[in-house]
Amino acid sequence: MTNQAIIDLVAICAKKGIENAILSPGSRCAPLTLAFARHPEIHARTISDERSAAFIALGMAQKLNQPVVLVCTSGSAALNYYPAIAEAYFQEVPLLVLTADRPPEWIDQWDGQTIYQQEVYGKHVKKSFQFPDSLNSPDQIWYAHRKVNEAINLAKSGPAGPVHINIPLREPFYPKKGESFIPSEELHIVHPHVACKQLSHDSLEQLKAKLAQVSRIMIIPGQQKPNPKIKKLLRQLAQQKKVVTVTDTISNLSFEESISFHDHWLGNEKISQGLAPDLILTFGKSLISKPLKQFLRKNPLSHWHIQAHEGARDPFQHLTRHLDCDPLYFLEWLSDHLQSMDEGYYSKWQSLEIQVKENLSEILQNSEFGEYQALQQVIRHIPENSKIHLANSMPVRYMNFLGKINQEIICNRGTSGIDGTNSTAVGCAFTTKEPVTIITGDMAFFYDRNAFWHNYSLANLRIILLNNHAGGIFRLIDGPKEQPELEEFFETRQPLNAQSLAKEFGFGYNLVTQAQELESQIKELFAPGMKAKILEIQSESAKNAEILAVVKEKIKLLVEE
Amino acid sequence: MTNQAIIDLVAICAKKGIENAILSPGSRCAPLTLAFARHPEIHARTISDERSAAFIALGMAQKLNQPVVLVCTSGSAALNYYPAIAEAYFQEVPLLVLTADRPPEWIDQWDGQTIYQQEVYGKHVKKSFQFPDSLNSPDQIWYAHRKVNEAINLAKSGPAGPVHINIPLREPFYPKKGESFIPSEELHIVHPHVACKQLSHDSLEQLKAKLAQVSRIMIIPGQQKPNPKIKKLLRQLAQQKKVVTVTDTISNLSFEESISFHDHWLGNEKISQGLAPDLILTFGKSLISKPLKQFLRKNPLSHWHIQAHEGARDPFQHLTRHLDCDPLYFLEWLSDHLQSMDEGYYSKWQSLEIQVKENLSEILQNSEFGEYQALQQVIRHIPENSKIHLANSMPVRYMNFLGKINQEIICNRGTSGIDGTNSTAVGCAFTTKEPVTIITGDMAFFYDRNAFWHNYSLANLRIILLNNHAGGIFRLIDGPKEQPELEEFFETRQPLNAQSLAKEFGFGYNLVTQAQELESQIKELFAPGMKAKILEIQSESAKNAEILAVVKEKIKLLVEE
Repeated sequence: MTNQAIIDLVAICAKKGIENAILSPGSRCAPLTLAFARHPEIHARTISDERSAAFIALGMAQKLNQPVVLVCTSGSAALNYYPAIAEAYFQEVPLLVLTADRPPEWIDQWDGQTIYQQEVYGKHVKKSFQFPDSLNSPDQIWYAHRKVNEAINLAKSGPAGPVHINIPLREPFYPKKGESFIPSEELHIVHPHVACKQLSHDSLEQLKAKLAQVSRIMIIPGQQKPNPKIKKLLRQLAQQKKVVTVTDTISNLSFEESISFHDHWLGNEKISQGLAPDLILTFGKSLISKPLKQFLRKNPLSHWHIQAHEGARDPFQHLTRHLDCDPLYFLEWLSDHLQSMDEGYYSKWQSLEIQVKENLSEILQNSEFGEYQALQQVIRHIPENSKIHLANSMPVRYMNFLGKINQEIICNRGTSGIDGTNSTAVGCAFTTKEPVTIITGDMAFFYDRNAFWHNYSLANLRIILLNNHAGGIFRLIDGPKEQPELEEFFETRQPLNAQSLAKEFGFGYNLVTQAQELESQIKELFAPGMKAKILEIQSESAKNAEILAVVKEKIKLLVEE
Repeated sequence: MTNQAIIDLVAICAKKGIENAILSPGSRCAPLTLAFARHPEIHARTISDERSAAFIALGMAQKLNQPVVLVCTSGSAALNYYPAIAEAYFQEVPLLVLTADRPPEWIDQWDGQTIYQQEVYGKHVKKSFQFPDSLNSPDQIWYAHRKVNEAINLAKSGPAGPVHINIPLREPFYPKKGESFIPSEELHIVHPHVACKQLSHDSLEQLKAKLAQVSRIMIIPGQQKPNPKIKKLLRQLAQQKKVVTVTDTISNLSFEESISFHDHWLGNEKISQGLAPDLILTFGKSLISKPLKQFLRKNPLSHWHIQAHEGARDPFQHLTRHLDCDPLYFLEWLSDHLQSMDEGYYSKWQSLEIQVKENLSEILQNSEFGEYQALQQVIRHIPENSKIHLANSMPVRYMNFLGKINQEIICNRGTSGIDGTNSTAVGCAFTTKEPVTIITGDMAFFYDRNAFWHNYSLANLRIILLNNHAGGIFRLIDGPKEQPELEEFFETRQPLNAQSLAKEFGFGYNLVTQAQELESQIKELFAPGMKAKILEIQSESAKNAEILAVVKEKIKLLVEE
């Protein structure tokens, strides 16, 4: 006997625009599995390791801007989803998480694969629903339909995020032979219409008065998806020398005149003097640059954050206003109301930017071979249409050192874990035929190797693996490198390279250990092909630390001149 | 500057008998990492994948019967612990989970590696503490000491389980050069003295009266560690034909006269008629045998559960009494107060047991080669002093079919997940020089391959990998095997074998595909050596299903005679 409520749930998902589901194998979830696998408008895939499954769904939803469904069986399966769910929550990516559960009467009875699943994701989902465990009356069916609508609408509404429905299921789980899956005739659908938030006349007048008092404005976009309209507007403001825009690699908003090499010198007190803005405007989420945060925390200034929902954060300790509206709307208003600004201020930032820009490339080319130089060379060859997934720890930091790039940068900066980089990129690769490039370190890469443990094609996936056989970051930050425990307990040296893995999963593989070999291998990597490819760039953790210090010193001398 | 509260925390752990810590690399947790790594009485190891780290700690604590410490950095690291923490909670294994956190002022400020860590494990820890984030007054220091005592005492007290301390830490994280780690002179220690629970005279009189009314008693020990005293007592009762004891492979209590082949025929209504007991006595936790549960649910009976703490479950739907005392104490009382019992009842069970016992081996030897036959052969050769770790799904079920074994059986039946089998066994291997044997399927094995991603010796680890390239259980249970989605969405066919993995981690490796090769390979596997070894037994999922059906049918004919 089929479970009508589950068939309806899946039909409502489809009617509300959900097109993808990532399932993991299990018995308790069989009614969900079958209903998703059989729905003609939903593409279902199956991934055995639930930790990877959830990051794959995250990677798909990031790219598609629409909720992706996750389905797992009861028990610890749901817990393996949790790292990706927290990432989705803080990164504001929509997921519809469906966990099959035993009915209440069999929870806490020593039955297999049973934990306490209600509300199990705590504060890391927008909401957690309990699906009704009996559906005998029309009211219960209407209620089930309503909950599914509410969950999907909530996952999509600003800010987007993961929503959980825990679904108790009783046997039988499987249809009789020949039984077909037909949704109820009356599927209850609730369509959301999204508000367009604008500021009141009084608010705008207040802001205008405040703007009249400042002459040094800095705009700092946090992590966000590319937005051509905002980019165009920011560029106009920069060309008019009215504002300094500081872009981070994860802001996806850099342009010719934006500042992107600030990480190289903002920590330098001497240089940074006199560069503090009067007012900063932010929108989007987090930033990579620690020197930027510290610089802004130290200097007195006003900070307006633009975000069309609650929960404005105060990362610079100077938040003075939260503008509850759409960033593009406010920036358009701003560009009409900016009066005379301090052009000299703009020029100071520009001249520092240009100094680093004009010299970094040469400095790196003249440095010893290591991951920094290699990465600089790699990014010149990444196809224009490729998405770039960065692992946390060093890859995202190196990219922030290396300045602007045109391609979309994706990085799990919601929780900044190293746990799901591969899987997130695999999810992205599932949504497109265009290339997807991962830039990762060995710790993140091997941590999440189960990302590749499935039967779906990854022909468009390209992996740059910076293998220094350790968590090299611990040698690059102050503190751990002076401890005798450095190698065992911080770097955690690990001997693997990716050759075996490539063989196991049928990926192309090449290893580079010297500068001369790199260029041709990069070209080979990005040549189209029928399978995923890995280019492993091997370097020494200690040498990389040295190089970074040398480059830093050279830039210091340069900008202090 | 060293963090005195953290040094004291570690010193209190040592004073309270904690000898092992599993650390994972991170920066926020550096004060904990250093204090554990430098403590002379605590053995600290580092494991990079926190999911594996937590299962490794679980495996150690299972074996040692004392809390093992887990230390991770802030953010999603803590979430990767969760599957093992839930397992520890339901399996009642003591863990002290220390999660480093940002101080409150930097939570929810888009800082890296920051989630909502307070109470993050919900109902799956015995308690969650928040460590004080300032330690300026003597009261705060006393409070911190007290919390650590309370957490450790709670982790150990019956039922044991995981306890969480979330620890906000501010920079600096690293000591100055030459600074040494000296605990405070006055370390506050609270020693627990455990109650010995006995039943009241009135209770015992009531029970005596009830016992006088029954003549068919069945004792069913659930999952527990070996207990020679209980085993001896149960055996005496069996030899006197006073009670039928039904042992499961995970009860670790089987003896010559206990019933262990019940899974083969209890589902058969015809045979099972007239075999219901009047009274069942249980102690320990869960059971594997679904036929046993269903048989007991269907028949009217009384059920007394013996457990010296709250939370008696009712898996057979007939629980009538919870005896809040130690099982050994009660069984001793029982053996003194059992009057005339139905010896015929005892004999009926025995004769069924003997029928299967005398024939199964031959039936299997005459069956086609597959994992069932192979496993029967394997278990004869497992060294007497080896611990045996069973993966969930088929390995534990096959072992339950195959009857008694002398070695201790360990299986994660708290949540019955496949997610941490390898890691749990690795944890066990860390605690002993004696052999540790894993019997696993390919899904569980590859799911948890990061168990081996570290630098510690596993010379005593032996792995039997039953590789049918799929979640073969879905072909063995009714329902999924009739669905067209069987291979993609249930079995989730996977092509890997363990050869590459063995090479990567430097393990010995042999593959067996035919019966003739098996005997010598098993001997080779269990020969001592300097490295872990894998024996991969390859079989076909569909063939295994066939064999199981044939064996079942043969046993049916046998017992129905």
